[in-house]
Amino acid sequence: MNLILLEEGDFVAPGRVRLRDRRLEHVRAIHRARPGDDLRVGLIGGQIGTGRVLSLERDVLELEVQLSEPPPAPSAVRLAVALPRPPSLRKLLQQATALGVKEFVLLHSERVEKSYWQSHGLAPEALQRQLVLGLEQARDTILPRVSLERRFARFARETLPALLAGSRGLVAHPEAEQVCPRALAEPLTLIVGPEGGFVPREIELLCAEGAEPVHLGPRLLRVETAVVALLARLAP
Amino acid sequence: MNLILLEEGDFVAPGRVRLRDRRLEHVRAIHRARPGDDLRVGLIGGQIGTGRVLSLERDVLELEVQLSEPPPAPSAVRLAVALPRPPSLRKLLQQATALGVKEFVLLHSERVEKSYWQSHGLAPEALQRQLVLGLEQARDTILPRVSLERRFARFARETLPALLAGSRGLVAHPEAEQVCPRALAEPLTLIVGPEGGFVPREIELLCAEGAEPVHLGPRLLRVETAVVALLARLAP
Repeated sequence: MNLILLEEGDFVAPGRVRLRDRRLEHVRAIHRARPGDDLRVGLIGGQIGTGRVLSLERDVLELEVQLSEPPPAPSAVRLAVALPRPPSLRKLLQQATALGVKEFVLLHSERVEKSYWQSHGLAPEALQRQLVLGLEQARDTILPRVSLERRFARFARETLPALLAGSRGLVAHPEAEQVCPRALAEPLTLIVGPEGGFVPREIELLCAEGAEPVHLGPRLLRVETAVVALLARLAP
Repeated sequence: MNLILLEEGDFVAPGRVRLRDRRLEHVRAIHRARPGDDLRVGLIGGQIGTGRVLSLERDVLELEVQLSEPPPAPSAVRLAVALPRPPSLRKLLQQATALGVKEFVLLHSERVEKSYWQSHGLAPEALQRQLVLGLEQARDTILPRVSLERRFARFARETLPALLAGSRGLVAHPEAEQVCPRALAEPLTLIVGPEGGFVPREIELLCAEGAEPVHLGPRLLRVETAVVALLARLAP
């Protein structure tokens, strides 16, 4: 927790918050803060700044807050990724959020196990927990949006054309001829398949809508690793 | 397991292996292979190729092996990283091995908890297990080497000068002025600190030996994420 994320409801007066939940525990156990110490704070959806510890008691932490800086710039990449199994989904959401992704599309694909769609990890509050962990890590405040596409064909034929109207589409595909480009500042939609990849028919459908297949070399990577590597390579 | 790694001891005749351990279980449970199927195989330290299933019984898998291709090119990066807590170490070794790193130096630093050095994860067989998982993922056969540096000062003053005699040194440091360069083909030694970073005195010692501090932007990343992002950015 490199940043303590505040919500509007935490404010008890202008510039003053009281915290009672895991943030209190973290400040006590990890920061070992004392009255007078300055902590990094940020308002969800707003600016970042400092919170001076006014008091830290067993059940409540009171901070005097000054918010003065914008959060770090977002990534230009929208990430559309085949729904991974629940532990991978958690890591992927945390890591890609820390890297600045602001829009996730979780989609079905032939090699996605149907049972993954029943995971508790897809409940809105479970998704938000992972996004908040990513924001706290990277000192960001802007919550990403997550949408679910439970049918691949509908994603490819209806959603994707709308996404690609405003962005360049890239599909991570180990058998692509083109290597993934570097350092792109334009809006991008990066599409990443499941472990084992998209099936040929899916690649065809994505490319028919204008997405370009790109590879990262001969090494096959786990989805979480590939996502971080692709985001780092594409970052301007 | 995108590649079944073979050892010399698996061969019962030229071009023929018998497997009985977790590789047998994996081929049965995940590949669901049958006699006549071709699997991707590689010899540790050697070439990759195909293994045709001759027989698959309850307790033994027999393959006819043809090895004809070199493994993928290694990364030019030697990774010197402050010893992370055991679960992070496992992920880091797997992921960096999959990305082609062939030399790891695990080092002490002021913010490394001393108890991490007592972890069972540092036993040679435990380290090798993670390296093998990374090789199997990326279809590589060349086992990385891992060395341990339990004293930071000795690493900085004795080991590092020797490493930097043959490679360019980069230290990941969020407060650096220079952004991390991209696409370097020359031999590199990438030095990555613990969660929370190196302390200023450590940065000074590393830079005094010629390592250049570089950053990845304003977002603070977990060590595993930073390592993958740096390797992807540096890859030519």
